[in-house]
Amino acid sequence: MKTRVHVTLKNGVLDPQGKAIHHALETLGFDGVNDVRQGKLIELDLDENVTDAEIEDMCRKLLANMVIEDFEIEKEAA
Amino acid sequence: MKTRVHVTLKNGVLDPQGKAIHHALETLGFDGVNDVRQGKLIELDLDENVTDAEIEDMCRKLLANMVIEDFEIEKEAA
Repeated sequence: MKTRVHVTLKNGVLDPQGKAIHHALETLGFDGVNDVRQGKLIELDLDENVTDAEIEDMCRKLLANMVIEDFEIEKEAA
Repeated sequence: MKTRVHVTLKNGVLDPQGKAIHHALETLGFDGVNDVRQGKLIELDLDENVTDAEIEDMCRKLLANMVIEDFEIEKEAA
């Protein structure tokens, strides 16, 4: 079972990497970019018997730093 | 317009960061994890007049390293 976890910085947390990308896009001549935020994408290949609660547990314990980050779990069709 | 870009390593490209996460999950006692790959998630806030071709151009020129990475553009409802 393929599962994607999106880890994003919470609103209000500074994102220097996103700012750098934003600046680079402007330098390259791309207009119309208002904001850029960089997060992490973690793709898990899990056994079918892994429950949603376990996946959430993985996120809370390891994949995301809950102080500054949010996560979102997206399960793909098997 | 919110747009998400998923940047993932191409198949066959070694992913030590993913391996480290996989190992850490096992150490924490999570079973049933077959594979982990780590990618990047870039959230763009764009003007409405930015075309799909321009977003693809941003990916090819800056956001993804086309030699080792693939990208996927996901537009969110305005």
